[in-house]
Amino acid sequence: MPIREATSDDGTTIVYRVSGPEAARPLVLLHGWAASLRCWGDEVLDSLSKEYRVVALDLRGHGYSGAPESGYDNPKNWAADVAAVLAAERITAGAVLLGWSYGGLVLCDYLAVDGTSAVAGIVFVGGITGIGRGQGGGRVGPAMREAIPGVYSEKPGVALRAFGAFGDANTGARDNVGAVAQNLFGISLSTPPRVREALFAREAGHDDLLRDLDVPALIVHGSADPVVEVSVAQHGAQLLRDVRVSIWEGTKHAPFVEDPARFVAEITTFVAGLDRSP
Amino acid sequence: MPIREATSDDGTTIVYRVSGPEAARPLVLLHGWAASLRCWGDEVLDSLSKEYRVVALDLRGHGYSGAPESGYDNPKNWAADVAAVLAAERITAGAVLLGWSYGGLVLCDYLAVDGTSAVAGIVFVGGITGIGRGQGGGRVGPAMREAIPGVYSEKPGVALRAFGAFGDANTGARDNVGAVAQNLFGISLSTPPRVREALFAREAGHDDLLRDLDVPALIVHGSADPVVEVSVAQHGAQLLRDVRVSIWEGTKHAPFVEDPARFVAEITTFVAGLDRSP
Repeated sequence: MPIREATSDDGTTIVYRVSGPEAARPLVLLHGWAASLRCWGDEVLDSLSKEYRVVALDLRGHGYSGAPESGYDNPKNWAADVAAVLAAERITAGAVLLGWSYGGLVLCDYLAVDGTSAVAGIVFVGGITGIGRGQGGGRVGPAMREAIPGVYSEKPGVALRAFGAFGDANTGARDNVGAVAQNLFGISLSTPPRVREALFAREAGHDDLLRDLDVPALIVHGSADPVVEVSVAQHGAQLLRDVRVSIWEGTKHAPFVEDPARFVAEITTFVAGLDRSP
Repeated sequence: MPIREATSDDGTTIVYRVSGPEAARPLVLLHGWAASLRCWGDEVLDSLSKEYRVVALDLRGHGYSGAPESGYDNPKNWAADVAAVLAAERITAGAVLLGWSYGGLVLCDYLAVDGTSAVAGIVFVGGITGIGRGQGGGRVGPAMREAIPGVYSEKPGVALRAFGAFGDANTGARDNVGAVAQNLFGISLSTPPRVREALFAREAGHDDLLRDLDVPALIVHGSADPVVEVSVAQHGAQLLRDVRVSIWEGTKHAPFVEDPARFVAEITTFVAGLDRSP
């Protein structure tokens, strides 16, 4: 998996990894709050890379990407980050964008600025499309509400306890995922506290964008997601014209962790039905 | 800081970041057990990059480098990882190699295979040069002894408690380093438990290598290091012919965290006195 970087409009370095056949359809993965490109896991990345040109980003402030002091509340920065990576990889058509959790909002930020000319379809995975009070596309669940504001703290003890509120939100009922849980927890802890806070200091909604979207969408959401409420999936489903909704009964916030094979299968089926060629 | 990768002899991808003037003397940073290239901190990297061509590796099994199932007990793999990065960066002379903690052992592994033809000097920072029973160059302190074997566990609760044994070993008396502590703790948690264990499943010593070393060495070690005993610094000082020893009174395991400015100054002074040109 080659590792590369692109420079966003404000100079921030966006690091990403690329895998899969060069000529295959691009699948761009956008992770969630306090995560990184390492969140997807080798099993999911390896499987997806057999079919697609997988481009997994580290969002700004996360992983090995740059972490500027400010600008996390500006949707144009998030859009420019995605656009910079697409440009660096010369992706101009047929891409599928997939956003997990906060990555769904970043995906919308990109579409709001750049449109869908490079895009064949989009996927929300436990994803949000808005943030702030009164945003139906941004309703967080009890685990997230309980974690805030402790997860913003620079004090290790406070932050550790606050992250504990997520419990098994990312691993759910799957067995033997202790190493996966430690990895995700570790990635969150190594995301700067100021970045964790800045991502929530935003008011945004993309209902109009979803209503007018001219490419198909897939929504995958766990019915028991305690981080992003499943009502967010229903909100999106009502707005989108061409949408397939897959609610996973009893699954929590990370379907790709709980059942990687099913996750890859659902993505593959969705992408197979897309019109626009890469 | 461009991010790049090199492929080691066994096919493992070694990710590294490069910064500083291309023509400057190379300074190669090797982090410790369960750390990553993010351990050094922006302040240290930025300062060092003003003087040197800084090349900071993710050791195999750590950060974004590949994490093969086995081979962590083979010194030739560690040597090949360093050699692969030097080759990728076309570094053939005048490099300074700096190893923190376990990175000191990796540094020795490299010298044992490749010699010093590319090297002008070496630096051990709280570094080990051996591992296993009876190795004077590998005596671990009480924090490390207490952490094992819990830090090998895949169970998040067990691992979290075990890492707690390190307490402030990396941050020491420095104020306002909560975010730094969380970063280092998070990096450790996101290092696979099997890798954490594999690094200690080794018997190795490099006393003969140190005795015969034909380039100058600097040893920086905290007098209160609870992870690697300060006796390891004394052990190295007795063996090495051309060595400068800097024991930091009251400092723990990560001098570059406790006093970045002093750390950079001591490196700079040492490197200024080296004969071999880059």
